[in-house]
Parts: sequence; structure tokens; C-alpha cells
Amino acid sequence: MVEPIRWEDGKVIILDQTELPTDLVYRTCEDVECLAEALSSLRIRGAPLIGIAAAYGMVLGVWGAGDEGKLWDELERASKRIRSTRPTAVNLFWALERMKRVAEEHRGEGAETIKEVLLKEAEEIHAEDRRRCRAIGENGAGLLPEEASVLTHCNAGALATGGIGTALAVLYVAKERGKEVRAFVDETRPLLQGARLTAWELRQAGIDVTLICDGMAGWVMGRGWVDAVVVGADRIASNGDFANKIGTYSLAVLAKHHGVPFYVAAPLSTWDFSISDGTEIPIEERRPEEVTEGFGRRTAPEGVDAYNPAFDVTPAELVTAFISERGVAFPPFEEEFRRWRNGEDFLAMVSLTRR
Amino acid sequence: MVEPIRWEDGKVIILDQTELPTDLVYRTCEDVECLAEALSSLRIRGAPLIGIAAAYGMVLGVWGAGDEGKLWDELERASKRIRSTRPTAVNLFWALERMKRVAEEHRGEGAETIKEVLLKEAEEIHAEDRRRCRAIGENGAGLLPEEASVLTHCNAGALATGGIGTALAVLYVAKERGKEVRAFVDETRPLLQGARLTAWELRQAGIDVTLICDGMAGWVMGRGWVDAVVVGADRIASNGDFANKIGTYSLAVLAKHHGVPFYVAAPLSTWDFSISDGTEIPIEERRPEEVTEGFGRRTAPEGVDAYNPAFDVTPAELVTAFISERGVAFPPFEEEFRRWRNGEDFLAMVSLTRR
Repeated sequence: MVEPIRWEDGKVIILDQTELPTDLVYRTCEDVECLAEALSSLRIRGAPLIGIAAAYGMVLGVWGAGDEGKLWDELERASKRIRSTRPTAVNLFWALERMKRVAEEHRGEGAETIKEVLLKEAEEIHAEDRRRCRAIGENGAGLLPEEASVLTHCNAGALATGGIGTALAVLYVAKERGKEVRAFVDETRPLLQGARLTAWELRQAGIDVTLICDGMAGWVMGRGWVDAVVVGADRIASNGDFANKIGTYSLAVLAKHHGVPFYVAAPLSTWDFSISDGTEIPIEERRPEEVTEGFGRRTAPEGVDAYNPAFDVTPAELVTAFISERGVAFPPFEEEFRRWRNGEDFLAMVSLTRR
Repeated sequence: MVEPIRWEDGKVIILDQTELPTDLVYRTCEDVECLAEALSSLRIRGAPLIGIAAAYGMVLGVWGAGDEGKLWDELERASKRIRSTRPTAVNLFWALERMKRVAEEHRGEGAETIKEVLLKEAEEIHAEDRRRCRAIGENGAGLLPEEASVLTHCNAGALATGGIGTALAVLYVAKERGKEVRAFVDETRPLLQGARLTAWELRQAGIDVTLICDGMAGWVMGRGWVDAVVVGADRIASNGDFANKIGTYSLAVLAKHHGVPFYVAAPLSTWDFSISDGTEIPIEERRPEEVTEGFGRRTAPEGVDAYNPAFDVTPAELVTAFISERGVAFPPFEEEFRRWRNGEDFLAMVSLTRR
């Protein structure tokens, strides 16, 4: 499995995802600035991976600090710089807070001790994510038939996480268990994460991939070629309405029409129990140039308006089941979500992020 | 309205559609070879326009012939060359046959007479298409509400015909009648006809355009922003199942789910009464590179499989109404289609194309 980030002797090695799929380029970050730039420019992307990178970034920030006074300054500086890179990434803030808190617990114990504690915490954040991905895969794999042709959208894979991904984890574990798994991958306009990242990652993992344009998904389902749709999520409301990459909602409607099961795989940190339904999820709109000048070339008339929402919201009633590290939830979702929510580690995380 | 082709003093002036939307380039063809190259390389595209170009091409072929013997040789040569450019374009064969037939009717009357007759016939083919487009627009315009936000796919406009288009004719005539018309245009991957051609053409005509990626259509409908979907068709079966640009089927399913009327606008020549339903329509598959290397740049991993059907088939039950130059057909379609079919000019055309 591809490893998009790792710590090595005071450095962070990252896979530069902007170079995929044509080039496999690893970059070595020796300071916070390098890592912050990688976050801003999407060399590192995917909610869980952003959190992990932020944690390692905090370690990088203090790694050269000779005394504890210096260390606290550097920690604050690193936090500020990293915070500025992706202002809407919840996982990023969560990771920064967690790192600061663990450092605080060791205030006064000297720079070397705190550095060690911070590195251990970053590695633990990474390891936790690895375990979460594995658990999501284990929980979801049973939902796929013995011969499974799965349609997925965008990239909810190893490239987005510290482990084997979320949606793609379901495919990987099903394959490990001997199921015959093949995938249709939506190219996912405008930014083509499906074509660039998911098709690449699945091929690396030895899964048979057929790339399609987003508008072909209905036709492919209509031919009976899809046994299940599995996607990730960016934010899930209490009732199961969820936001994910634009195009997900169309897929959900098409799956419903064709009687194809539609699964959403995500870590529990994606649930936002502070909102009751999808109407409370704001939709980020991105630059129209992503649509009109994709691929470094103008493909639409100068000055034409383009609508470019980053996400759409799919109502819970179009979802067959949610898969998290805690299990599988079928409708009615809220009951099962409540059980998941009452788990200890989830509450610990919430107390850190939702102040 | 843009004029993608015209005859001028022994020359054919064409709008080079491969240069759109960034450049407005007209090319002057003085011989068959120039026109054939324009057909092959899609500088001229769209079923009706291809037929018109083929007819003018026959005139170009004989234009320099000094005597009638030479003229018959050149006519045959032109026909062969043009026929080779788009081997699946029904309108092209139909136009070539019609031109040959009218020439035959004047055999022995001398080169100058036959040239004149051929030019008149080509201009008549062009004028007929112009009238057909107008009639489609007139018939369809009444289906749109006073304030109409219309979603369309690919290009079924003036750029594809000798007149104001088919699907887009409905918008143009509605606007003429004082309706407030705005359009959402699917970019239409892989070849981006929506972004490159339709967005350009509608803007030229003063219609407010919002370009979207194909995967956004469901979301845009879900927000209540679409009053009607209007698309063209490449081939329509007796029962109303129809083939059109890939992505049309997904749109039809999405429209059904959202209660949005779904209209298909096409000239009667698009109906193929020799097939009873859509299962008999073969689906052309095109090069995977159109998906993996769109826009002159590789966007997917080397060697990845891509599925690239040129068309999909939408079942009749997803269609609210068909619009042709004869009128509007609501379900049950077959009865109305039969009435249309019994019209005189349609029978004349069929006798030429379906031998």
C-alpha cells in the first residue's frame, strides 16, 4: 500500500500528490514552512492525512529548539503557520489542539522530553488513523458480494489517510478476504481526483480499474455492471445527511434508481452531531476557473459563468448503510449513530475539537 | 445567430469548430479535399450540418468541370471522398444520394445546367434544415415556462445544424417570444462540446449561461434551479427509446427523480422506424485516450483502462415529450410518431436513405 507520509530522523517524507499520476515524487520536509506549503498546495490532501501532517508539522517546528523557552515559541509559531494553510479542515485544528495539549501536560520537563512526547503523539495520531482505516475496511468488506464490481468517486483511499483509506479500505479488505473486486472510478471533475489518484492507487494495489467520466455512471449502472457504490464523506449530520465531493449526490440518486446499494465509509470524526441535518452544511464554492480552465487549458469561452461547488449534500434516505470504525449502520441511522457516539475515544476527540 | 457554413462564389466558408471557444476562425474551402478534411477532423460536426456540408462538397467537386463527361467523373470522386470522412453519419449518405439523384435527373443537359441544379439542391437542403430547426423551436417554445432555467447537454444548437439548432432552437424561440430564458450547460465530458460549443453559442445569442461539470447536474436540479431539461438525439427508435451523447441517460434519471420535465428535440430524420426499441441501437466506443488524455494532457495513470461509449440509450419512459418539426409528442409516443411518419417529405427522405 502506498504511504503518503512518514517521519524519518527529524524529517517528514511526503508523497507529492500533485505530481500523480504521471510521476511518483517524494519530498523531504525539514521545516514547518515546507510542510505548510505542501498542505496549501494540496501536495498533501485528504481530511485524515491533513491531521496527521499537521501533527508531524508541530514536531518539525520544535525539533531544532535548544531549550524549553524556545520550544514553546516555536510550537506556537508552527501552529499558527499550519493553521493558515487549510482554514476549513477540521482534522487539522483537532490535531494541532491535541499536540498542544500533550505538550502542556509536560510543561517544565525540558525541551528534549517534550520533543519526544510530541513525536510519540504524532506517531500515535498516525497509528490511530491506520487502525481506524483497517476497522472501517473490516466492517465494510462483508457488505460486498463474492464478486464485486464497485463504483467509487473522488479519492477516499490510502492517499487521503494514514492507513488503507475509508471507502477504498472496504475494497482492499474484501480483496484480502479472497473476494474478486473490481472498480469503476469516476474521474471526478473538476479536479479529477478519481482519475489522478484513485485509479492510480487501486492499480498499485492490484485492483482492476475502469475509469469513466462522471456522466457515464448512470449508463454503467443501467447495464448492470455495478454491484455497489462506496464513497467517503466530508461531514455527516446527526440524521445521516452527508456532504461529499460534488457528484456524490447524482451518484446516490442513480444508485437508488437502479437498485444498487449505496454505502458511505468514514471515520467517526466525520460525524458532526452539532447539526441535525444536511441543510446546516454550508457548501464551499471554489474558483470557476477549475471548471473553465481545467488541465491548464481554457475549455470554455472567456467570461462564461461557471458554478463550482466543492461538495454536495446527499440526504440520508439515499444511503443504504454507513460504515465507520465502530460498525455498520442501517436505517434508522440515528439510533446506531447514538451508540457509536457514546464510545469513549469519540467523546475524548469531541472534547478537543468542539470547544 | 452564428452561421457555421455558407456558399459564396464557388467557395464554401466554414466556421472551424475545433478552434472554439477561444478563437473564431472561418476557413474557405475551394475544393472537395479541404471540405473532406474539415469533416474528418470535426471542424464541421453535428448530424444536420454534416449533411449540408456533404451537399456543398458535391457542388465544389464539380464546380471546375468544363464538360459533362468530366462532371460525372468529378461527382463520383467527390462522393467517394466525402463518404470516407464519417462512416457512421446517416445524414451524410442521405445528402450524397439526394445530390446524385438530382444530377441524374438532368443527365445530358450539359455541365453548366447540372452545376446550377446541384447548387440549387445544396442550398435547398440547407434551407430545409433551417426551416426544420425553426419549426422545432416554434413547436417546443411553448413547453417552457415564462421564466425558464433550462439544463442542456452536449451541443444541439446552431453549430450543429443549418439553422438555429434543435434543442437550443427551443430556447431561442422561447426567448424571441419574450420568455426569460437562462441555461445550465453540462460541460459534457470527454469532448466538452457543452463547454466549448454550447456555452459559446448561447452567449453569442445573448442567453445567460452557467457552465457546470456533468456530475453537478443532480445537485443543481435538487436545489430547484432547473425548470426543464432539453437535449437533442442521435437516433430514436419506434417506441421512443433514443440514443444521444453519453451522459444523457444519467440526466434523464436525475430529471425523473426531481420531477423536472425532460424534453428531446430532433428532426424527423433522427427517427429510425426500422428498430422497435433502444436495445437495437449499437453503442459506438471511442478511444480511451479521450478520457485519459483529455485536453492534451495525461490525467490518468499510464495503461489504465477507460470505458468511453460515445452515446447512451435513454428509455422512452424517462421522456416527458419529443419535439420535432411536426409537433410535440407526449406519451403514448408511438401513435403520434406514426402520424409524423406518414407525412410526405419524411417518406421521400426515407426512400432515399433506407434502401
